[in-house]
Amino acid sequence: MKLDEYTGYDGLGLAALVRSGQVSPSELADTAQSAINAVNPTLNAVIGPIEPRPPAADRGAPFFGVPFLIKDLVLHAEGVACDMGSRLVAGSFVSPHDTDLMRRFKAAGLVTLGRTNAPEFGFCSTTEPVLYGPTRNPWDTGRSPGGSSGGSAAAVAAGMVPMAFGTQTAGSVIRPAAFCGVTGFKPSYRLIPTAGVKDVAWHLDTAGVFGAGVADVAFVTAAVTGRDLRVDRSTPAPPRIALVRAHLWPQASAAMQQAVESAARSAAAAGAKVVDLTLSPILEEAYAAQIVIQDYETFRSRTFEYDRHRDLLGKELRESLDAAAAITADTYDAARRTSSRARQIFADTMADYDVILTPSAPGAAPHGLGSTGNPMFNRLWTLMGTPCVNVPGLSEGELPLGIQIVGRFGRDRAALEAALFVERAIARETGT
Amino acid sequence: MKLDEYTGYDGLGLAALVRSGQVSPSELADTAQSAINAVNPTLNAVIGPIEPRPPAADRGAPFFGVPFLIKDLVLHAEGVACDMGSRLVAGSFVSPHDTDLMRRFKAAGLVTLGRTNAPEFGFCSTTEPVLYGPTRNPWDTGRSPGGSSGGSAAAVAAGMVPMAFGTQTAGSVIRPAAFCGVTGFKPSYRLIPTAGVKDVAWHLDTAGVFGAGVADVAFVTAAVTGRDLRVDRSTPAPPRIALVRAHLWPQASAAMQQAVESAARSAAAAGAKVVDLTLSPILEEAYAAQIVIQDYETFRSRTFEYDRHRDLLGKELRESLDAAAAITADTYDAARRTSSRARQIFADTMADYDVILTPSAPGAAPHGLGSTGNPMFNRLWTLMGTPCVNVPGLSEGELPLGIQIVGRFGRDRAALEAALFVERAIARETGT
Repeated sequence: MKLDEYTGYDGLGLAALVRSGQVSPSELADTAQSAINAVNPTLNAVIGPIEPRPPAADRGAPFFGVPFLIKDLVLHAEGVACDMGSRLVAGSFVSPHDTDLMRRFKAAGLVTLGRTNAPEFGFCSTTEPVLYGPTRNPWDTGRSPGGSSGGSAAAVAAGMVPMAFGTQTAGSVIRPAAFCGVTGFKPSYRLIPTAGVKDVAWHLDTAGVFGAGVADVAFVTAAVTGRDLRVDRSTPAPPRIALVRAHLWPQASAAMQQAVESAARSAAAAGAKVVDLTLSPILEEAYAAQIVIQDYETFRSRTFEYDRHRDLLGKELRESLDAAAAITADTYDAARRTSSRARQIFADTMADYDVILTPSAPGAAPHGLGSTGNPMFNRLWTLMGTPCVNVPGLSEGELPLGIQIVGRFGRDRAALEAALFVERAIARETGT
Repeated sequence: MKLDEYTGYDGLGLAALVRSGQVSPSELADTAQSAINAVNPTLNAVIGPIEPRPPAADRGAPFFGVPFLIKDLVLHAEGVACDMGSRLVAGSFVSPHDTDLMRRFKAAGLVTLGRTNAPEFGFCSTTEPVLYGPTRNPWDTGRSPGGSSGGSAAAVAAGMVPMAFGTQTAGSVIRPAAFCGVTGFKPSYRLIPTAGVKDVAWHLDTAGVFGAGVADVAFVTAAVTGRDLRVDRSTPAPPRIALVRAHLWPQASAAMQQAVESAARSAAAAGAKVVDLTLSPILEEAYAAQIVIQDYETFRSRTFEYDRHRDLLGKELRESLDAAAAITADTYDAARRTSSRARQIFADTMADYDVILTPSAPGAAPHGLGSTGNPMFNRLWTLMGTPCVNVPGLSEGELPLGIQIVGRFGRDRAALEAALFVERAIARETGT
């Protein structure tokens, strides 16, 4: 797929077509299913498609009849299998009930077409795809779409569905959104309740969404959470933006650095106040703490599988758990204290800004399927619990690059408004 | 049962007997089973006893061979049924795996004898015991042992087992411990990980433990969490105690007020610094916020049952969910903000104190089985995430009264040391 072949279509537009009677939910489902049939044999983004049912909500629901997909790890719907990418689970778990999240999707009028592929228990390695094999990036099938929600990002990028859901524990929404050139939104920690969803790391796990643009991810999150996140699409106010070249900045590719600086210039040209900001050193410590917290909690969430069924785990996950088993409770507690202090200091720092502008990933999707890429530019923000939006920026050759807009905890609407402003500013500059 | 007939025995003592070869794990299990057979037909504290298996840990485990019980709501063990007190679940759910918590119990050497009775999904009403009927208080079988972990508290109070686990979302560990005259410990929020345990209200749910004394609950929590909470049983240092007569103080019975004041005098006589403390008004607001947060999240955790199987829910739970359905996301978000502010202010307030001394409940266990009693004296501390210990204080006639020791978030060891100090001081005064 070439950048100019992008066939993504927006959920809000489809919902409007259904509402005005120009298209029926079953026509939309058929179209999406045809797209899946055509593209999925190459991409391997969708697994176990399920029979689309008529929308469960009434016709007035905001996304009535709009088809979507959910990451295998979090699709707990009554009577539907959920494998979590695991040989151990494979086919043995059929959810006896809908989670609250699933009920919310249904109430919003969304129609589930199936599950998207995810690595084993969300562990981000595709070198050893234990159950369904790796997903491929629509822009270059020799590359990964990112992980662990790469199946959802690829499905949206390839135009199979207008929107899809995933989860982020380190960088599993923002990174694949960046690699696949779609909008990704990781709301504030727990804005989308995940009650009943199997834990990866309970202080970090956050549900998020992929879509064709900021308005789509904002409106669907509003519909699912009951919060007023319906950003004004005509006149987003100019935000106060802090351009952050954190300690990881040198590890971003030159193209990525240029993309972020270009986005900052575009935003400033459109009227935003853009200021360079240096973060407190405690945030660098918090970055290291995120790794400790993720590894410790992931191990605790997998003790049964690790103790009793080690042979059924992939080699890399097993080795990662071996290492995590050695983390002491003291080390973990120290990391949690660092995290609390950092969150407080970050909140103080952000009193004068609406959002931070920073890379979504070190660069474009890396070559090969041996890795889903590095979540280094996402770990800190997941730990801080802040809303993050990926907005596609400049490209690197034929590959998309992602700009990350990071907001303040609990101020998801402001983060989305700023992201919409940046999205517009970039589009104006590039003439798209 | 009369107060002087209390046959409770301590887990640390039993573990020492096993270690020295004076008693075998199977003898302990037989003794506990005999006690259950003798007393449970009256108390209805234990349901679905399971075949005790030999301890899974090695002989060096700290509680090797010590029998215990777990609340039905949280006993997710491989191959064991968990009904959650619900007609809807009844017999249909057998856990395919151990939770991390269950693995920790096994690694500590503890032997599970079975599940303790709990109301439907932990909803604290016994007027309509939908599955197994109400549990009775060992001190007066015409009274409730408290809820929702009343089965665990009653089992320990009646000497069936030396220790038992439960959970607290409002006051479900501390209140039943108070009503049953045993030690109860609700650690800091998430000190005991509950990954894989069904949510009630995710910002509040906290696992806790019942035992014969402060040393027991401290050492078993240390064994299960890997934290050094093994309080020095010989010489607890005199703590700095704040005596709090919060806005709810007038709702405590005269006997309860006397019990708290008497405990404060005993502690002061033993060398503790005791100071009267008035809390900031924001903590009164936080008390109200706890109710909003609990109700909103409980509803979200039960949407499937509520939407699809309302007829199988108890009338009171159904009516409570009807009311909770009307809480808006805005109201919930405001309650969460109040909670964050209050937590910060409470942390500042406590800089000069180790613990707060306050009632565990409004008084002794109330008459009848129509209610498990009021968690009013527990709600705020559950929301603040602070460690809380119930220590039995003066009695009211033949009924125990509970003194609550509230520590600072994350300082569980200091809270337990202060509780041990108060326990000793009370014992010295009363000559027990």
